[in-house]
Amino acid sequence: MKRKITLKQIARELDVSISTVSKALSGSKEISEETTQKIQAFAKFYNYKPNNIALSLKNRKTKTIGILIPEIVHHFFSTVIRGIERVANRRGYNVIVGLSNESFAKEIINMEMLANGSIDGFILSISKETLLKQDYHHFNATINQGMPIVMFDRVVNEVDCDKVIVDDFNGSIKAVKKLIENGCKNIALITTMDYVSVGRLRTQGYIEALEQNKIIAEPNLILKIDDSLDVENQIEGLEQEIEQFFKINANIDGVFAVNELYAVTAMKVARKLGLRIPDDVQVIGFTDGVLSKHATPSLTTVSQHGQKIGEQAANLLIDRLEASDTESPQYFKNGVRKSDFIKVVIETDIIERESTK
Amino acid sequence: MKRKITLKQIARELDVSISTVSKALSGSKEISEETTQKIQAFAKFYNYKPNNIALSLKNRKTKTIGILIPEIVHHFFSTVIRGIERVANRRGYNVIVGLSNESFAKEIINMEMLANGSIDGFILSISKETLLKQDYHHFNATINQGMPIVMFDRVVNEVDCDKVIVDDFNGSIKAVKKLIENGCKNIALITTMDYVSVGRLRTQGYIEALEQNKIIAEPNLILKIDDSLDVENQIEGLEQEIEQFFKINANIDGVFAVNELYAVTAMKVARKLGLRIPDDVQVIGFTDGVLSKHATPSLTTVSQHGQKIGEQAANLLIDRLEASDTESPQYFKNGVRKSDFIKVVIETDIIERESTK
Repeated sequence: MKRKITLKQIARELDVSISTVSKALSGSKEISEETTQKIQAFAKFYNYKPNNIALSLKNRKTKTIGILIPEIVHHFFSTVIRGIERVANRRGYNVIVGLSNESFAKEIINMEMLANGSIDGFILSISKETLLKQDYHHFNATINQGMPIVMFDRVVNEVDCDKVIVDDFNGSIKAVKKLIENGCKNIALITTMDYVSVGRLRTQGYIEALEQNKIIAEPNLILKIDDSLDVENQIEGLEQEIEQFFKINANIDGVFAVNELYAVTAMKVARKLGLRIPDDVQVIGFTDGVLSKHATPSLTTVSQHGQKIGEQAANLLIDRLEASDTESPQYFKNGVRKSDFIKVVIETDIIERESTK
Repeated sequence: MKRKITLKQIARELDVSISTVSKALSGSKEISEETTQKIQAFAKFYNYKPNNIALSLKNRKTKTIGILIPEIVHHFFSTVIRGIERVANRRGYNVIVGLSNESFAKEIINMEMLANGSIDGFILSISKETLLKQDYHHFNATINQGMPIVMFDRVVNEVDCDKVIVDDFNGSIKAVKKLIENGCKNIALITTMDYVSVGRLRTQGYIEALEQNKIIAEPNLILKIDDSLDVENQIEGLEQEIEQFFKINANIDGVFAVNELYAVTAMKVARKLGLRIPDDVQVIGFTDGVLSKHATPSLTTVSQHGQKIGEQAANLLIDRLEASDTESPQYFKNGVRKSDFIKVVIETDIIERESTK
């Protein structure tokens, strides 16, 4: 018997990228006809079935949800998984977790592996590399083959599916307003590069809050951290970068950071420079993780309600899976109208602790 | 076509536990003949294949490793997964993660799901409920069907397989010795209930270190936390419990805690009671997570090297998978001798920070 071949092996054998194989097999017009034919013929010879998803959906329900997240060492994603699990368990589903490690190719490989008969549908958050490439064919191909996807947090308009997002924009406005109300005059923003949509939205919220209060956003007061590297390896670099930033901008009396690591590091640096928190500098973070709770002083933060996000996403997916059982077998085919999909926006809350007055 | 049935459904239909179904299908003698026959007949009728594992192993290699861990919101397990991933990626394997949520039944269900053709072998850490029940038939059945398992951290002697463990006993001895050398006279231990082997070993290490230094271990100075509840829901209870403990034992000048949450909470409580760290009380934790690094004062801790554990476990599993490809097809059958299995012990290190002198 011929061994089953994987996307990765096809890519290696034909010396093309995994993305090219994936696109050719889903019939994308981006790939030349010649390449498509070659890849399809090769896949056929080695018994690779690009439409295994549809086959498995016809024959059985796995009662399993596939979760695909960018990284595991991340409190926000952990709490989302916990939320998904709670609802899944209550409604008789199991979950299984795949990791993209922020890599486009790994995202494709994991989706292929999970979709191959192990799961009924996906709950996922897009990898940074995929967002940079803006290549979403693998999501659309999966949906077109009849497997529903619910996206959370890092979502894109280019894929039509149910989505659960945090109100990042208004969350930032709330945080920056709080700092303004507390008397801060020179509020710094510590954020990520713009290609991750949540970082962009939080930056926009910061600017909006300043404008609403007739303060002109100063580019000097915005520090964009390049977080495309492995988080663990850059902690020291992060500290140095923020220290430099504080030294150049000695007037900073408020900091809004788009995640808790940046916020806690900013507090550490401020203390090192002899600034008292919250007397000299007030700090607000985003994401209510263990660091925020246990930091000294404890961190005022914008809570994203990760568990609620997970619960909503699981309910959306299971509702759709069970509706497709009974109502309309055509529900997920290409003809689905955009308006059929639901976008749930989770409101954020400010949790006040010791890092603000 | 009849739908494929799952273990869970069989259990529900026949009104028996998942464990009973699982045991009956693997031919365990613990289950009466009548029950076994009933379950096997039912499973056969509904096309349930208990030996799917062996079938899938014959026909293909998935090049995927199944990881099964007790919980996701846990920095130690996250770093182990990171280690597994690094080695897996380098050696051409993918990983997929299942969660037992510390539940025996969920552990069985997840193993069944993953073993059903999705993966080539398991890397796992046993759930608390399984350890309490001391029921390990599902691990042995999986191994007997030809699928290798590597256990890490929470392991048991009753299952013959490769294991990677932390030297918890000597790690504790190092920590308590350090406190003694630093002048502590009344060293408290904050630990878990004894059924989790790592908690037991760390407690034994504490007692051993005291004895080696001719100090008699005082039962009063040992606080055992019941951590069978959900961690998030017990943080306040934990604080109260530790505060009570400090008030009863006003002489405490050193604390060794078996995890970082207990250690950080002990520091918080001590400060609240007006004690200075490290001047009045010195604290050492176990596990080098984000809390230890970012706590104020930062926490001296016993590092378990989670990533190294993951790397070792992945190498052991892949070595075994690839050896079974080429060397001996009988390698994993019942005839494997105990001595063929490898136990890797990862040494711990003390990372000194601000919570000790």
